[in-house]
Amino acid sequence: MGLEGNLIVGQSGGPTAVINASLAGVIEEAKKHSEIKEIYGAIHGVEGLLQEEIVDLRSESDEAVSLLRNTPASALLTCRRKLTEDDYEHLLSIFRAHNIRYFLYIGGNDSADTTHKVGILAQESGYEMRVMGVPKTVDNDLAYMDHTPGFGSVARFNALAMRDAGLDSIAMSTSTPIKIVETMGRNAGWITASTALAREKPGDPPDLIYLPERPFDHDRFLSDVKKVLERGRGCTIAVCEGLRDAEGNPVVASKSEIDTDAFGHRQLGGIGDYLARFLMSNLNLKARADKAGTIQRVCGFAQSSVDAAEAYMAGAAAVRHACEGTTAQMVTLVRVSNDPYKCETGLAPLSAVANAERVVPDEFISDEGNDVTPAFIDYALPLIGDPMPSYARLKLERIPKLLQT
Amino acid sequence: MGLEGNLIVGQSGGPTAVINASLAGVIEEAKKHSEIKEIYGAIHGVEGLLQEEIVDLRSESDEAVSLLRNTPASALLTCRRKLTEDDYEHLLSIFRAHNIRYFLYIGGNDSADTTHKVGILAQESGYEMRVMGVPKTVDNDLAYMDHTPGFGSVARFNALAMRDAGLDSIAMSTSTPIKIVETMGRNAGWITASTALAREKPGDPPDLIYLPERPFDHDRFLSDVKKVLERGRGCTIAVCEGLRDAEGNPVVASKSEIDTDAFGHRQLGGIGDYLARFLMSNLNLKARADKAGTIQRVCGFAQSSVDAAEAYMAGAAAVRHACEGTTAQMVTLVRVSNDPYKCETGLAPLSAVANAERVVPDEFISDEGNDVTPAFIDYALPLIGDPMPSYARLKLERIPKLLQT
Repeated sequence: MGLEGNLIVGQSGGPTAVINASLAGVIEEAKKHSEIKEIYGAIHGVEGLLQEEIVDLRSESDEAVSLLRNTPASALLTCRRKLTEDDYEHLLSIFRAHNIRYFLYIGGNDSADTTHKVGILAQESGYEMRVMGVPKTVDNDLAYMDHTPGFGSVARFNALAMRDAGLDSIAMSTSTPIKIVETMGRNAGWITASTALAREKPGDPPDLIYLPERPFDHDRFLSDVKKVLERGRGCTIAVCEGLRDAEGNPVVASKSEIDTDAFGHRQLGGIGDYLARFLMSNLNLKARADKAGTIQRVCGFAQSSVDAAEAYMAGAAAVRHACEGTTAQMVTLVRVSNDPYKCETGLAPLSAVANAERVVPDEFISDEGNDVTPAFIDYALPLIGDPMPSYARLKLERIPKLLQT
Repeated sequence: MGLEGNLIVGQSGGPTAVINASLAGVIEEAKKHSEIKEIYGAIHGVEGLLQEEIVDLRSESDEAVSLLRNTPASALLTCRRKLTEDDYEHLLSIFRAHNIRYFLYIGGNDSADTTHKVGILAQESGYEMRVMGVPKTVDNDLAYMDHTPGFGSVARFNALAMRDAGLDSIAMSTSTPIKIVETMGRNAGWITASTALAREKPGDPPDLIYLPERPFDHDRFLSDVKKVLERGRGCTIAVCEGLRDAEGNPVVASKSEIDTDAFGHRQLGGIGDYLARFLMSNLNLKARADKAGTIQRVCGFAQSSVDAAEAYMAGAAAVRHACEGTTAQMVTLVRVSNDPYKCETGLAPLSAVANAERVVPDEFISDEGNDVTPAFIDYALPLIGDPMPSYARLKLERIPKLLQT
């Protein structure tokens, strides 16, 4: 309690539509605590920090900090850097040199691991500091929390984009009957599942949804698509870039070494085009694939108001807890009630979050493995914020035919 | 003048964010003219019309028709159908059977050609009817008009998406320094050019823009990218799916027969991934490609208010002109002034529009062929409607380094 010194905050991993809202929460909360002297930002996360690339966040205008709530991507710039033992030592010497007593790192599992290790080293070295994680990942795969900041906005983007893509696909069904929408997602299908939020009524697109939690089978896929096509209005399909076969191998992944990051993750992406070609050659029908790619995760114009508010809340809570003496914890989001939707923050040990991954549970996946359940919709719908915009639905009443054709 | 009978409207080609706004304009204007008895819609354009798939649009609620202004995709469903001589004869017999005296077709060049031929056949057969084209194409490549309904919204989507993707790319520049955004566009680079509207200040992404109006050269591309990378904050590139080499061949196109449409157009797309692989193998740096695909052209959540208003105006004008005795014309958009921006409708012969294509002119392309000019920005900026949302720009003032590394 009452630990005096400077605070530094950094952003890590893939940017999102709301990681800057968490940054705003950190800065504005930090200003309320007199024991926090300087408020610093680490440029490019721990990568820039190792080079002492540190900025003064107290010198930013209140207006700019406030605008961060609605500014996508990572204003402090980000990194995907796995630290060596030497790096950790060097980091600690930088913290000492700049009297940094509060280290807040906004990120996912890998960042939680980094933050945890910083905390351990500081403790072992007898340097008093508090380290806190602020959750961030569009993948929604962090354990010990109801959902992650970033997910609500990527879900909103995919709900909106899928609704429009589905309408497009139905309209084009006599010329391009098959549309595949490829979403992000390595091991967890949360993002892909969120395309189901596009539906206003049963039977609305997407017609099929494939998550990496179920092994992908080409034959079953083909038969699913054929069945949908029999309805005569095309087929719109959501697929996760991380789909795996029965042996657990990615259906499509880059084999290039340059495409593998510091944490050993191989670059995914391209499964939409691959499956479009597969269906075209098997069905002799035209298929087209959309892959919004990174646009989906930083889409400022599809930011969820709920997500932005919760991201801010998580950032602020991290500072508050640290000032109260908490360390080595990640802030979590706890759903208190679903109707009305209400969410609060909680805490989980960084070490626990670092080593766990939360995939889509069985009760959210249909028995056939090609859709989500109503329980998933109940879970995800509050997270995308404002209601979807209203679209016209024409009755399209046919008039009697007068000619024999 | 005063030609009594029924009206039919159809939608053709790729859906857009505002083709339904034109449909709303047609329906609401038609209701004002007493000589127009029934207001019909053709399902799947001329394709459904040939099957007498006709709907009664007077039976739709006023509310649903009004909501069409903000509903993307084609509410009447669409087609890509090239008619045979027999088809045209059959179409005429359907018009006679249903006393259809007004045929309005919302589409691009191919639809203008179809509409033109319907008009000629009716005239030759002594069947009095008026045929009008309502312009629609995200490609902005119709001649005889300042711009096309649909372009403003795809431009808004690409401006918004590129701004977010550019921020993402800068934030990720130490791990994934190269981002390629692939946009639609067969022969004309208007859509790709619109990514330049993402810039708030000089030097903002996109760093490079490649249009199909200039032959694509791999060596020059590589040297352009290297030069941008020297600035040390990554490289964000906009490429058109229709890029061609010096011999005029697409850099990337499907060779599959199923991928060629009725008008002989081959499916494009995939150049982003292709160029990402090209750069990775030549620079040993990570690159990622986004291809929003059809989402960009039907993106309801990036609809331009100006585009929607003009699309509506074009639909209404087509009905008004037809009631005044005009036939075989397409409504055009005429820019009356740029500051303040003001646009009116005009007319051009369907036959002329059908056989022309308007590519990006030289004065809109930089001398180096890897960017647009300020003149293009002046042209395109009013079309995207409301100002872009404000984002935070931090000063990011570095504090002095205290350690020697």
